[in-house]
Amino acid sequence: MFNHSGAAAHAVTGIINYIRSRRLTTGDMLPSEAALCEELGCSRSSVREAVRTLSSLDIVEVRHGHGTYVADMSLSPMVTSMVFRIVLDTDHFLERLLDVVNTRQALDLWMTDDLVSHYRGEDMSQLQTIVERMRARRAKGELFTREDRAFHAQLVSVSSNPLIKELSDAFWQVHMAVLPHVRIALSENLDLTVEAHQDIINALYAGDAEAYRRVVVEHYSPLKRAIDRHTMGNRSSARPT
Amino acid sequence: MFNHSGAAAHAVTGIINYIRSRRLTTGDMLPSEAALCEELGCSRSSVREAVRTLSSLDIVEVRHGHGTYVADMSLSPMVTSMVFRIVLDTDHFLERLLDVVNTRQALDLWMTDDLVSHYRGEDMSQLQTIVERMRARRAKGELFTREDRAFHAQLVSVSSNPLIKELSDAFWQVHMAVLPHVRIALSENLDLTVEAHQDIINALYAGDAEAYRRVVVEHYSPLKRAIDRHTMGNRSSARPT
Repeated sequence: MFNHSGAAAHAVTGIINYIRSRRLTTGDMLPSEAALCEELGCSRSSVREAVRTLSSLDIVEVRHGHGTYVADMSLSPMVTSMVFRIVLDTDHFLERLLDVVNTRQALDLWMTDDLVSHYRGEDMSQLQTIVERMRARRAKGELFTREDRAFHAQLVSVSSNPLIKELSDAFWQVHMAVLPHVRIALSENLDLTVEAHQDIINALYAGDAEAYRRVVVEHYSPLKRAIDRHTMGNRSSARPT
Repeated sequence: MFNHSGAAAHAVTGIINYIRSRRLTTGDMLPSEAALCEELGCSRSSVREAVRTLSSLDIVEVRHGHGTYVADMSLSPMVTSMVFRIVLDTDHFLERLLDVVNTRQALDLWMTDDLVSHYRGEDMSQLQTIVERMRARRAKGELFTREDRAFHAQLVSVSSNPLIKELSDAFWQVHMAVLPHVRIALSENLDLTVEAHQDIINALYAGDAEAYRRVVVEHYSPLKRAIDRHTMGNRSSARPT
C-alpha cells in the first residue's frame, strides 16, 4: 500500500495501531520521535519517514517546535494528487478536466431525491443569500469563487452521506485548482452561471426533480461547451483538410 | 495545499513544473537529486522532502539504487488515507464503512443508463465467466475477493467517464481493506452475494434499468443489514433497559 521501504512501512503500521489502540483523534498529540522509536521498536529514520508519509496523507501533522499531532484526515491528499496528475497530463488536460466536471455532475444528480425531498417548500434563504452575493460580485466584474464553493457546500449539507458531501467539495477544489491552467475564455458565461445557481434554488423549492436535473446539467454546460469547442478545434486543426 | 515548510513546498512546485514542461509521463526518469537542486535552486533537504511528498502522492517513485521516476499517479493515496481514517475512527467505524458502501452503490446506480445501453442483448460471456469462478470458489468454501474486484472492474469498463471507473475501483479497495476489521459474521450471505452478481448480468442483458437498480441495491444489502443489526444492537445494549 506504500511506496517505500519495509522498515518505514512497519513504522507506519505501528503509528496507526498506536493511534487506534489509544483512540486518539484529530488534535491529540503523539509521543516524541524518541518515544515512538522505543514504543514501536523502529529506528529513528524509519519513524521519521513514516511520519512524513502520514503527514502527506493528512493523518498526522508536524507542528515544528511543538510536536506531532493527529491531523484532520481530510480528502486533501486526494485533491492534491488529482490536481497534479491532471495538470501533468498536458496532452489530455481538457478531457481530464471534463471527467472532473462530469463526476461533479454525477454526484449532484445522484443526490436529487435527497435534496428535492429536503428543500421542497422549505426556507431557502441561506442559499438565496449566497446567490445574491454572487450577483453583487458579478455586477462589480469580480469573480465569485468563494461564493460558488459555499453554495455547493450548503446545497449538499443536507445529504445523508457525509462521504458524498466530502467528495463533492473535493472535486470542486480539483475543478477550481485546474481551471487557471485552461486557456479558454469563460467570462462571457459568468452571468449564465450565476443564474444557473438561482435556477437550482427555484427547482428545489418547487420540489421538481426533473427541473433540478435539467438545471444541474445546464449549470455545468458553459464550461463543457467551451471544452468541447476547444478540443474539437484542436482535433480539426490537427487533421489535414 | 501541503502540510510542510515553504522551501519543500517550493521544491514540490519546481518538480511538478519540471515534469510538466518536459512532458514527462509515467516511467520517465527524473534528474538526480543533485541535478534537481541545481535546476530548481533548492537545498538538498528540500528536494528530498519534496520527493518523499510526491512519492506518498504516487506522483513520483523512488527506485532505490536506480533513481526517481514519474509514477502511476493512481488514486492509491486516496485509498490509503481513507482506509486509515476509517480504521482510526473506532467509535463510528461501521457508519463510515456504510458511507463507503453507499458511495459504491451511488456510483453503480449513476452508471445505470450507460451500462444498460451498452450491455442490452450483448455478449455477456466475460462477466459470466467471472461469476462461474465465484460459484466454483464458493462451492469449495473459499472467498472470491479477486473475482469480485474483476467483476466490478469489467462491469464499469464500458463507462464513458474514466474517473468514475477509477473511483469505483478505489472504493472497492477501501471497502475490502476495511472489511477485515468488522467483527460481524457475513459468511451466511456469500451465496446471496454470488447470485446478486448473476442478477446484475441478467438485468443488463435484458436492458432492464429498473431491475438493474433493484439488484445493485440488493447486492449491497447483506452487508448493510449486518451493519444495521450490529449498530442497533450496540445502541440498545448501551442503553439501560
